[in-house]
Order: sequence, then C-alpha cells, then structure tokens
Amino acid sequence: MPEHETTGEFGIIERYFKPLSAGIEGAFGLTDDAGRLVPEKNHDHVLTCDALVEGVHFLPDAPVADIGYKALAVNISDLCAKGADPLAYLLAVALGENARQDTWLTAFTGGLHSAQDDYGCRLLGGDTVATPGPTVVSITAVGSLPSGSMVHRSGAGNDDLVFVTGTVGDATLGFQILNGDAVPEGIDAEGREFLVRRHLRPKARHDAIALVREFATASLDVSDGLFGDFMKLATASGLGGTLNLANIPFSDAARVWLSNDPNKTEMMITGGDDYELLMTIRSGDRDAFEAAACKHDVQVTCIGAMSGPGSAILMLDRNGNALELQHASYEHF
Amino acid sequence: MPEHETTGEFGIIERYFKPLSAGIEGAFGLTDDAGRLVPEKNHDHVLTCDALVEGVHFLPDAPVADIGYKALAVNISDLCAKGADPLAYLLAVALGENARQDTWLTAFTGGLHSAQDDYGCRLLGGDTVATPGPTVVSITAVGSLPSGSMVHRSGAGNDDLVFVTGTVGDATLGFQILNGDAVPEGIDAEGREFLVRRHLRPKARHDAIALVREFATASLDVSDGLFGDFMKLATASGLGGTLNLANIPFSDAARVWLSNDPNKTEMMITGGDDYELLMTIRSGDRDAFEAAACKHDVQVTCIGAMSGPGSAILMLDRNGNALELQHASYEHF
Repeated sequence: MPEHETTGEFGIIERYFKPLSAGIEGAFGLTDDAGRLVPEKNHDHVLTCDALVEGVHFLPDAPVADIGYKALAVNISDLCAKGADPLAYLLAVALGENARQDTWLTAFTGGLHSAQDDYGCRLLGGDTVATPGPTVVSITAVGSLPSGSMVHRSGAGNDDLVFVTGTVGDATLGFQILNGDAVPEGIDAEGREFLVRRHLRPKARHDAIALVREFATASLDVSDGLFGDFMKLATASGLGGTLNLANIPFSDAARVWLSNDPNKTEMMITGGDDYELLMTIRSGDRDAFEAAACKHDVQVTCIGAMSGPGSAILMLDRNGNALELQHASYEHF
Repeated sequence: MPEHETTGEFGIIERYFKPLSAGIEGAFGLTDDAGRLVPEKNHDHVLTCDALVEGVHFLPDAPVADIGYKALAVNISDLCAKGADPLAYLLAVALGENARQDTWLTAFTGGLHSAQDDYGCRLLGGDTVATPGPTVVSITAVGSLPSGSMVHRSGAGNDDLVFVTGTVGDATLGFQILNGDAVPEGIDAEGREFLVRRHLRPKARHDAIALVREFATASLDVSDGLFGDFMKLATASGLGGTLNLANIPFSDAARVWLSNDPNKTEMMITGGDDYELLMTIRSGDRDAFEAAACKHDVQVTCIGAMSGPGSAILMLDRNGNALELQHASYEHF
C-alpha cells in the first residue's frame, strides 16, 4: 500500500509524527497499536491530560509552532507541579481542514519537537483523525517519580507558607495585546514581545521539579488564575489562607502596565495561563527552600500563608483589606 | 466558589465524571492535577490513544450511550490485542453545544460506565472543554502486563497460522443499515439489531487477552478492515501471507446478506470497525490454542497462514485466485 506512506492518515503519521518518537524504544516507531513504558524500579507513573481547541484555547491565527509547543508545555506543567519527571506523551489530534496542510503540520510538529527537547520527553503514541470543525489537540503526558512521593493539592498544613515561581499575569496581558488592547506607552517592543510570548509559548517549570519534590507540602500549576488556583489548593487541603497582593511577583513589563492602569490587577491575578507553580512549604523550611531555589536558579516569592480549617481564603490589598474579586479564575464554559 | 459545584466545567466534572473514577485510588476523585498508577511488580504499562469525532466516527444522531461505550471499547480493544489487562483511562472531551446538556452527559457517562464495568477499568483523569464545533472524544487507555510480554504486530513467523476471533463485517453492514441501505428480506428485526449494534456498540475482546498473551506471536485488532490490518501485521513482520475468503467467519445475518448480495464481500473484509483480534500462532500450537480458546469460550477461526519474506500478501477467493481489492482498509482522510 504505497499510498499509505505518502498521503492520508498513515502518511501524516510517518512523515510528521514518527520523528517525534525517535529515542523512546517503547513507541516502536509508532508502528504498533500501543506504546510501552517500563516503570523504573520503585517509581510510580503520573498521568495528566489537557486539550486545546482552536478558537477557544488558541486563536485561529496563532503561530502554529506555538500551538504545538503550548499543547505539550501545559501538560508538562501539571507533571512538574506533582514533582514528576516527564517521560512520554500520547497525542490525539483532530485536524481541521487548514491543519491538514504540510505547512501547518510542519510548524505544529516543530513546536512539539522544541517542547520535547526542553522537557526531555518523547511521543509514545497517538491518533490522527480529521474533523470538519476546529482543530482539537489532546495530549496525555506521563511522568515518573519515586514511589509515594507525588505532591498533591491537598497536603498543605496550617501556617505553611505559600510560594509562587516566576511572575504572574504576563500571559493575560499578552492575550490583551493580541486582542488589540491599547498598550501603555512605557512598554517597548521587547516588553510587548515578552508578554505575548508568555501567552503563546508558556514554559513549564521543569526547573522546579526537584524543589517541589523536596519541599512542597502541596502544589499545583497556575493555569486558571492565581487566586482561583490558590482557592483550590486551600479547599483541597481543608484550610483557609491569605495571599498578599503587595508580594505577588510581577514582571517589569507588567509593573509598567499596572502603573498606567491599576485596574488590570484583578485580571492579572485571576486570568490564568501563567503555568507557574504555586506551592506551600513548612515555615521552618523557608531558608533551605530559598537556598535550594537559588541553587536551581528558580525565582520563588513568598506571597502568603495558610491558616486553620474554617478560616477565610483571602487576597489582601496593600492596606490589608480583602479584595473583592468578580471571578476567581478562568471558567472554560 | 459555589457556582463551580453545580455548573460549568467543574460542575460537569463533579457531577458526571467523578463517579467514573470511583474505585481507583490514584484518580484522587479527579480533584488533583494528575492521576497516579503504581506499577505492579515486574509489569510494564501499555498505553494507547484513540479519538472519535462527531460526524466522522459517529453520526450526530447516534445513541449517546453507545458513543461513550464505543469510545472506551475501541481503546480497550488495542490493549487486548497487545495482551494487556486494562487498568485505567484518561478522557479528554471537547463538548459541542448539544453535548453540554444534562441529557447528553448522562447518557454519555452511562455508556462509559457500562464499558468500564465490562472491561474492569476506571477513569484516572481527563480534561473537559467546550468547542464551537463537533464533539471530539479522545481517550488514552492504560493496561498492564508481565514485563516483556507485550505482543507486537511484528512478531509473526514464517508458516505461522493466522486466526481471527468472532465474526467479521457485521459492523460494516450495520453502518449500511443506519445509512438507509436496503436490507435483504431474509434478515429479520433481530438480525438487523445485531448488525447495527456491532457498529454502534462494539465489544472489545477482553475475553481473549489470556489467549493473546499465551499464544500469539503477533496480534492487532481489526479496526480499519480485516485485509488491510492483515497487511499491516505481515508488513511489520517482514513476511508475506495468504488469507482464504472461504474461511473468513461471518455471522448468520451476514451470511444471509451475502447470499443476496455477494458484492458486499469486499466491503465486509475491508470496512473495519470489527474490533475482533487478528493474531498469528505457531502451527504446532494449533491444538493447544484451539483448546484454550474453547475453554475461554472465545470463537477463533483459522483464516490463513504466513509465508516467507518477499512473498505476496493475498486474499484468495473460493477458486484460489487472488482477490483484487479496491481499498484494503478504511482511510480516515
């Protein structure tokens, strides 16, 4: 069946997806019905799944390589939050008409390839189908960690400190720029580019996996909005807690924007798509944690603390008053 | 955030998907960012992924419970073909507008529940998003088998016998009925119902896993069409081979149809969606294999044999002539 090797479903797999499986034996070159993972001794597998829909999670005119990169990065982000090392992923892609073109597939798999290289994982299997509707990219990522060491949302203790990696709110501002919002004058081309890239091509905090595994009592990635995700962590842990707006880390570009338009604050702490890690650590571990973060070159900022069961979950402004937020986080529908 | 508990993405997860995760500890009630699988000692994990698109893989007016059942069954079918016991699955579902209704979600998750019960696996995690287009259901299924025992497409040996489970072509005829094709008079209501159900609600050969693991030198499931899938097995094994049309097992209803319309033969052996298992066994194992199949109450039929590298891959008609098939199997696009 030579036609299978150059066109159609099997041609696409052979040409575009098979190269993404190079280097992982259990993918069998995508020529079998399933992939195999041989568990490392005394390790568990951690599995997560995220889907992106054209027109919902990415704009139809988004750079296609970025769509590929982001689709994998957002899954890897969940593994990092659990303290798991990425191993492999499976890709189910329903290709819309424009996505069945060589240019699209070349760019998309190029973005996946970059993400694979950044996070040290390979394509283990998948399914490629056509859809008359918008393209849907679904990825299941698999990671590995020492038995019993998975970090949950629910492990925070009373009086634990709350830390976040990196900076928050950049992706939301980047999305505003792409939507044609006015950008404050003080933000130069480099600043705009930085904000837009944080939306289009977020990095998973692969560099923080060791920190999570060693120190975090609870952890999740900030994907739906900082405050909403903090509420999830606190609720899962059966605790209250307080974040302090004054301590939330913002990038230089974001600070310029906020100084021009302070009303953007709420959007930035509830807008999501940050893919930073939000974690709690025991207060007595603070010095060791910050030293380890420094060693791993990961920016971490203490933004709050947990409080006992039944206490409120709050974000305090610079005057110590609780912010009233219209939406704590992004709702997919 | 009380609104999360009754409506929107989180409400849907809580109400419809969380019950599917009952009984598997590593799903954490779908309240964490990822699921965990603790590998059984000296076992490997096998992972496979299949996507179904509304209007492509199922008709928009298909019974919704069947869509849920089939989405899981077609994935489990791949695990069975590899000799793996189903453990768990992740579900990424992009819900079109009609699929975000309670009636749809109730029926869909009901079908998933039936399939879970039939195959002994549970929902480990997933993602629920909205799409402006047709609904897309992507499932990643995970199975387990003793280390190194995965059965590949590529393991067939020269002179191995080719067996298939169950009967072939029923689903194709069922699809014809749903498309309004004329049904031969000799097929009664029960026969029509049987054929339609084989299309709408295929069963994975969960009952044949032990047979595959003990006897199969190569195996895959018949999803794209018997002859095309046989070509894949032979090609992957670097061999030729011959199937005999006279030996292909057809159901009673299919035989009635064929006696009225012999031209349907080609469609039935190339149409796909059978989800039977096609496997090769050593010729010396035949008696033991057939005895074991009888013990497991699995119908198996010897339909051909492999031949040496470089020899042709053929389907012979009742006169020993090679059939010329227009399409060996279903092409997704």
